Amino acid sequence: MTIVYAAIICGLIAVIYGVLTSQQVLRAPAGNEKMQDIAAAIQEGAKAYLGRQYRTIAIVGVVVLVLVWFFLDNHGTPVSAVSFALGAVLSGVAGYVGMNISVRANVRTAEAARTSLQGGLTMAFRSGAVTGLLVAGLGLLSISGTFLYLAGHDGANAGAPVVVKALTALAFGASLISIFARLGGGIFTKAADVGADLVGKVEAGIPEDDPRNPATIADNVGDNVGDCAGMAADLFETYVVTIGVTMISVALALRNADHLLAIMSLPLIVGGVCILTSILGTFMVRLGSSGSIMGALYKGFWTSVVLSIPAIYFATQYTLGDMHAAIGGNAFLDGSGASAEAVAGTAAGAITGMKLFWCMMIGLAVTGLLVWITEYYTGTNFRPVRSIAKASETGHGTNVIQGLAISLESTALPTLVIVVAVVVAYQLAGVIGIAFAATAMLAQAGMVVALDAYGPVTDNAGGIAEMAGLPDDVRHRTDALDAVGNTTKAVTKGYAIGSAALAALVLFNAYTSDLGRDFPSLTVDFQLSNPYVIVGLLLGALLPYLFGAMGMTAVGRAAGAVVEEVRAQFRDDPGIMAGTSRPNYARTVDLVTKAAIKEMIVPSLLPVLSPILVYFIIAGVAGQAEGFAALGAMLLGVIVSGLFVAISMTSGGGAWDNAKKYIEDGNHGGKGSEAHKAAVTGDTVGDPYKDTAGPAVNPMIKITNIVALLLLAALAAAGAG
Amino acid sequence: MTIVYAAIICGLIAVIYGVLTSQQVLRAPAGNEKMQDIAAAIQEGAKAYLGRQYRTIAIVGVVVLVLVWFFLDNHGTPVSAVSFALGAVLSGVAGYVGMNISVRANVRTAEAARTSLQGGLTMAFRSGAVTGLLVAGLGLLSISGTFLYLAGHDGANAGAPVVVKALTALAFGASLISIFARLGGGIFTKAADVGADLVGKVEAGIPEDDPRNPATIADNVGDNVGDCAGMAADLFETYVVTIGVTMISVALALRNADHLLAIMSLPLIVGGVCILTSILGTFMVRLGSSGSIMGALYKGFWTSVVLSIPAIYFATQYTLGDMHAAIGGNAFLDGSGASAEAVAGTAAGAITGMKLFWCMMIGLAVTGLLVWITEYYTGTNFRPVRSIAKASETGHGTNVIQGLAISLESTALPTLVIVVAVVVAYQLAGVIGIAFAATAMLAQAGMVVALDAYGPVTDNAGGIAEMAGLPDDVRHRTDALDAVGNTTKAVTKGYAIGSAALAALVLFNAYTSDLGRDFPSLTVDFQLSNPYVIVGLLLGALLPYLFGAMGMTAVGRAAGAVVEEVRAQFRDDPGIMAGTSRPNYARTVDLVTKAAIKEMIVPSLLPVLSPILVYFIIAGVAGQAEGFAALGAMLLGVIVSGLFVAISMTSGGGAWDNAKKYIEDGNHGGKGSEAHKAAVTGDTVGDPYKDTAGPAVNPMIKITNIVALLLLAALAAAGAG
Repeated sequence: MTIVYAAIICGLIAVIYGVLTSQQVLRAPAGNEKMQDIAAAIQEGAKAYLGRQYRTIAIVGVVVLVLVWFFLDNHGTPVSAVSFALGAVLSGVAGYVGMNISVRANVRTAEAARTSLQGGLTMAFRSGAVTGLLVAGLGLLSISGTFLYLAGHDGANAGAPVVVKALTALAFGASLISIFARLGGGIFTKAADVGADLVGKVEAGIPEDDPRNPATIADNVGDNVGDCAGMAADLFETYVVTIGVTMISVALALRNADHLLAIMSLPLIVGGVCILTSILGTFMVRLGSSGSIMGALYKGFWTSVVLSIPAIYFATQYTLGDMHAAIGGNAFLDGSGASAEAVAGTAAGAITGMKLFWCMMIGLAVTGLLVWITEYYTGTNFRPVRSIAKASETGHGTNVIQGLAISLESTALPTLVIVVAVVVAYQLAGVIGIAFAATAMLAQAGMVVALDAYGPVTDNAGGIAEMAGLPDDVRHRTDALDAVGNTTKAVTKGYAIGSAALAALVLFNAYTSDLGRDFPSLTVDFQLSNPYVIVGLLLGALLPYLFGAMGMTAVGRAAGAVVEEVRAQFRDDPGIMAGTSRPNYARTVDLVTKAAIKEMIVPSLLPVLSPILVYFIIAGVAGQAEGFAALGAMLLGVIVSGLFVAISMTSGGGAWDNAKKYIEDGNHGGKGSEAHKAAVTGDTVGDPYKDTAGPAVNPMIKITNIVALLLLAALAAAGAG
Repeated sequence: MTIVYAAIICGLIAVIYGVLTSQQVLRAPAGNEKMQDIAAAIQEGAKAYLGRQYRTIAIVGVVVLVLVWFFLDNHGTPVSAVSFALGAVLSGVAGYVGMNISVRANVRTAEAARTSLQGGLTMAFRSGAVTGLLVAGLGLLSISGTFLYLAGHDGANAGAPVVVKALTALAFGASLISIFARLGGGIFTKAADVGADLVGKVEAGIPEDDPRNPATIADNVGDNVGDCAGMAADLFETYVVTIGVTMISVALALRNADHLLAIMSLPLIVGGVCILTSILGTFMVRLGSSGSIMGALYKGFWTSVVLSIPAIYFATQYTLGDMHAAIGGNAFLDGSGASAEAVAGTAAGAITGMKLFWCMMIGLAVTGLLVWITEYYTGTNFRPVRSIAKASETGHGTNVIQGLAISLESTALPTLVIVVAVVVAYQLAGVIGIAFAATAMLAQAGMVVALDAYGPVTDNAGGIAEMAGLPDDVRHRTDALDAVGNTTKAVTKGYAIGSAALAALVLFNAYTSDLGRDFPSLTVDFQLSNPYVIVGLLLGALLPYLFGAMGMTAVGRAAGAVVEEVRAQFRDDPGIMAGTSRPNYARTVDLVTKAAIKEMIVPSLLPVLSPILVYFIIAGVAGQAEGFAALGAMLLGVIVSGLFVAISMTSGGGAWDNAKKYIEDGNHGGKGSEAHKAAVTGDTVGDPYKDTAGPAVNPMIKITNIVALLLLAALAAAGAG
């Protein structure tokens, strides 16, 4: 278990890095009194929202906890229940701590930007890095700790069913929090943003972040609870699920392999060494002679990725010993329906350390390519964004048409990249190869989340600079810092959904393996010619659509409430528009809080309840085997359709946003032109696409899969098999 | 073969009905000189476009014809080549004749509307009925004729491979034309519509169909080439593919059944008797005391559907004799991979006539339910359209957000209906049950197409009334007639895509059966746990997205060209806006013609070439069996994703359009209000959604499937097996 201890040390280093960097951030000057006032309002609003969100989730969480204990632990030793709680709590902690540093770094970034661009960049990125490293560190600690505790200090129980069960429950806890946090935060941020824009920019004709707008604090709060806390919970979940399911797959496929413990520890140590490379990467974020901010962030990202290559190689070599020796050669699967070759090896022969290394390199390549493709589709230097900007000249309608066309198109290259990765990784090392590719992708989470969490800090810094009336040159610097935020945010979402596609394939494999183990006498036909498979695919494919519809409608409804609230404030106190009285920011924050919490419940339960319903209905109509077939197909249907829905929404939304920015930079008539008005419409449409519905598809896919695994386990525990 | 002769007689009756009704339409008065002038310009433009479109398709068609003869007929007796040509030519004929009557009925509808609403309704619906009955009649004649010729007059060869091959080639011919016609027509109509609106309504501030707008004739031409000719080609294809694939499935599954000839003839006679009920239905389209136009159209539709119940029952009884005797009990499949039970029978026992009858009743129920659901999502009396209208009050952005939410949501109920239909039909009679459900759906095509083809006639009639300066009360009548057109058009598209989903399942079954017959030594793993199946699903799911993106971009580009052309005409001759000189309508028509033809080629070839590429690449990387697995999965991927893309686009687009109409009826501020402007944006966005990209997904799905079947046949013929 030396390897696992090493991974735990890496996780602790991440936490220590987080603590030290937080202190660095907090030591920096926090600006003048007015700035601090504004920042305090944002802090207060964010804290109030998150508190209420977590309290609501806690109620659902406790109910689920009891169900988990009752059905999964068979109301005995609460292994699953405790793991579930651990995943849920740590997911919440990552989001909460990240947001707390974010709402303190925003004002300090504005203050630092008074002196230099580099100062502002450093402050904002450091805050993002705290969130990023905490996500990766806590994620790694939770899995390693659970594994260490259950597998025993000698690792004797590494492949035992209890380990698989606990890791699944851990992932479930993280997923359940993340879907609520992603959706609640997403609804909050976009309801406030869209509402503030509609009533401020469009109706009252005042600029964004104008202090006279009663929704402006809510808008800034939203950036933190959505893009920081929600995103952190999402990536924590993605991290835990991906690494967890890789270990589970290894445990299921290589149950009797000689090196089982070593191979199960490999994902952990890979996660560990990549935390170290991510930390090294954070020190490379510096403006070069070109002054490009995106370039500075990419320096950090690429440093981390490139250093990960030797780091992963040596970690693999250290863990497995001989890189060319066959591992898992004597592995077999009992009755899972999948052939041993398909799971544990390939036509090309047994798995070796070298092959796993190459699979992880595929994961790194996918990460790099997805970043590059997302940048192409959302950056202002390339055809897609420019075509939307050009289409804005002929009006609102053509802007939206072109944006939708780009959003549909943007799915093509990521799909091809994922398809090639699946084929090559599978040829190298079977399904386990795909799992290790996904693990290497997620190992970069520390750096990727840092890039993303940078966004809300700079966005807030710009808002504070505007509201506090800082000089124009400061506002220019914060604008420049903020401009790259759209791209970095889109990048993270593409990365998350791409890794979700790989993870979902591995989860499906876990499902079939579990099925074989728990229901050995049942023959489940997963052939495409089985109509219940088609039915499952169709129902699974429906989920992202229905979920997206609910998310979009929720934003529309909540934004409408914001508009009416702001109109009422303007009407009741004309002094607000005159600038003589202060609007009631807190009332708006409170309104959005209540609306977001209310709206997040039903859509979040959709992916939790649907798999259960589908299983019981189909099993009732056509028997248990067809029920399992339809349920399994549903898991793939949700990823096949969800991948496209999520990519099209997040890339399309980012492209719309940057098309507006491109016009504001003086193209096609610049700010205030007809083209600009059309681009604002496109941006508004893209908002719930890219920040509410789209990103929430990722946890939705995972939770559907995990609920299916848990349902299997519960049915098995209940002796239904 | 008595049954087949009876079907042929029904097909001939449909053609005779078409000829007689055409004469009735043409005998009606064609209005004053000015109206005739305008109508002549539309006729000329439509003829010019269709001529050029067919010439372009002919070039592609001849190339494909040679390939079909070379690879499928093994450069021998051209059975496949002749069938291909027959399908292609008749598909073109149905569209061409329908459009020709449509461009003559438009002006006569305007003239009839001068005296009464009923007069206008009768004229427009009769014209639609000509197209509808021609589509069904020619479709039925082509299949029956091919079958009669190849099966022999005694039906001895009914199940021979040559019959299967010829029916597949016939379907391919129809599909190839329909994808070009749907897409070319769709691009034409929306480029003209969007272009005319942008430069007329938005820039110049003149109303729709204002004779000063140089794009107004092109707009009216577009209604005919898109909604009439393109739609007719599409439904002809759907009809031929569905009935053809039902026969193919029967031939493959029940190869050795005693009643093979009778069961293979059953889809033909069902199509035949439903032509008769459709004709009876057309006589019921009359305004009742409520004066509801939609009600009048529904009277015709429901008459046709309800009369079909006994008609189908007696046709089935007459064809099969004993309704309760087991048929196909001795059927088996050799080596197809699918179990004989899955294909030919069910756990509930052997197939009987009664069970097939119930499957067909499921088809009728699906038809009715899809019509009802589409009406709910696109009608002005229900929540969805009203929610979009309400969201328009807060601006362009919220209108589009709500419209997108509705478009996502609108996929849910149709999917559930289809899923239930699949499960029940399969439980009753296996995959053949699903095929017969689809056949009964398509048997209603005569009436459904009539409802759809009614739309462009009334749309044109309104345009002619406006341009010819007819009195306000006439314009009110044509507006009322036109208003229901959005819903009837959406209804047809929902129906087409719904039937495509059922047909695609049957096509996939034909694919696996063919594979078993042609490559008996190959074991193809269609299990979901095979990564090449996942790869195929993902690549298939990508096609509708990429295709949609291309279609939307094409419309944007072509509409932009229209805007510039119209601006140039306004600039060069200020007399146009002053109303003193006549704009050059023909130049705009010519421009849109060229643009649409150019833009339709690449996206149309996408579904033709993709299956071929996927097979050869995957087969090259992982062997022939995995190539076939990926290709098969691709066929299902394209339907799983295409169903959602198509329904969301067509229902969403219809809802946007009617939200605008709802506001124009005086709600939320009425015409000219801010809400109305936002609704116009939504309508513009919905245009390419519902009339270009969305409807073209249906032929795209079918063509992907048929190309896969042909590729299999070609590989088998080449001795690759």
